[in-house]
Amino acid sequence: MPLLRFDLIEGRDKSSLKKLLDVTHNVVVEAFDVPQQDRYQIVHEHPEDHMIIEDTGLGFKRTKNLVVLSVTSKSRPEEKKQKFYNLLAERLESECDIASTDLIVSIVENDNADWSFGLGEAQFLTGKL
Amino acid sequence: MPLLRFDLIEGRDKSSLKKLLDVTHNVVVEAFDVPQQDRYQIVHEHPEDHMIIEDTGLGFKRTKNLVVLSVTSKSRPEEKKQKFYNLLAERLESECDIASTDLIVSIVENDNADWSFGLGEAQFLTGKL
Amino acid sequence: MPLLRFDLIEGRDKSSLKKLLDVTHNVVVEAFDVPQQDRYQIVHEHPEDHMIIEDTGLGFKRTKNLVVLSVTSKSRPEEKKQKFYNLLAERLESECDIASTDLIVSIVENDNADWSFGLGEAQFLTGKL
Repeated sequence: MPLLRFDLIEGRDKSSLKKLLDVTHNVVVEAFDVPQQDRYQIVHEHPEDHMIIEDTGLGFKRTKNLVVLSVTSKSRPEEKKQKFYNLLAERLESECDIASTDLIVSIVENDNADWSFGLGEAQFLTGKL
Repeated sequence: MPLLRFDLIEGRDKSSLKKLLDVTHNVVVEAFDVPQQDRYQIVHEHPEDHMIIEDTGLGFKRTKNLVVLSVTSKSRPEEKKQKFYNLLAERLESECDIASTDLIVSIVENDNADWSFGLGEAQFLTGKL
Repeated sequence: MPLLRFDLIEGRDKSSLKKLLDVTHNVVVEAFDVPQQDRYQIVHEHPEDHMIIEDTGLGFKRTKNLVVLSVTSKSRPEEKKQKFYNLLAERLESECDIASTDLIVSIVENDNADWSFGLGEAQFLTGKL
């Protein structure tokens, strides 16, 4: 269920993009303990001047490789969110050559009634999920 | 007020897209009891490999027709959300030939202070809405 | 930290877009008391028929200049949100020639654990922010 929106600067080749999505999904599964097929990913690629991403004074130098990841999810404990950030930064660096200073994540939470995955049903309410 | 973001795979013709938006808006009005002109719809069309939408193991086969709808709204009761999912799935199938297994909806709620519809005012706070 | 998503109708030249982003950022800093480098802006430009933005019956005539701004932020008091709407409408009108009837803002709030700005850390939890 988490729905992931990736905002990227355009220019990645198809296989790099695929790798980024696959690696991220594996981290979602591992950190949030969701089923393997709980995968909902949307990518937006932007011209460089359509993303202005600074660093709140933290001293990070952003590059064109940056990944802004917006996650919509049911409530998750703090520890799992931290595990998610950690693991994702580590794996994107080791597997996708994306510096951990190029990863920005923002999570928004919602509730059981806020999801329908098909058939017009709210599967978290009907007990199907 | 609900703000609706449609993520679609590119390739729909203009009239199919218009129909999808119109039908969805009518369901918003009916399920959430909002005014006819309470319409805020944004469409993102994506290359096929920019949307990876699986099924959490529910057994749905997604097609290129899929609709991922992200709704931002003030709080709504569960029953109205369920009515919205149901009606929308039904109408998209009957009026737009979109299978009910191709509709994914996610809602995020906010509050009265979180909306300005123009003039720099928060109309739900000032009593204009 | 607030993350700002701008949905616009395509056709602005680069300098008008830059000005819109700069002016908006200055208002974020002023209204929300955030650091100057707390800037996270993403722009989506759309064909005209990909945005249907009406007025909930408030009597606003929208133009192609319209700005739909979706903000994700930690909790902010009502007064600051109202200040933000006011100031932004005023400045976009005076500095960018965008009518105050063309500005729609929607805010979604999240928590300290919901942000990572880099290094896989949750900086609002670790005390770095």
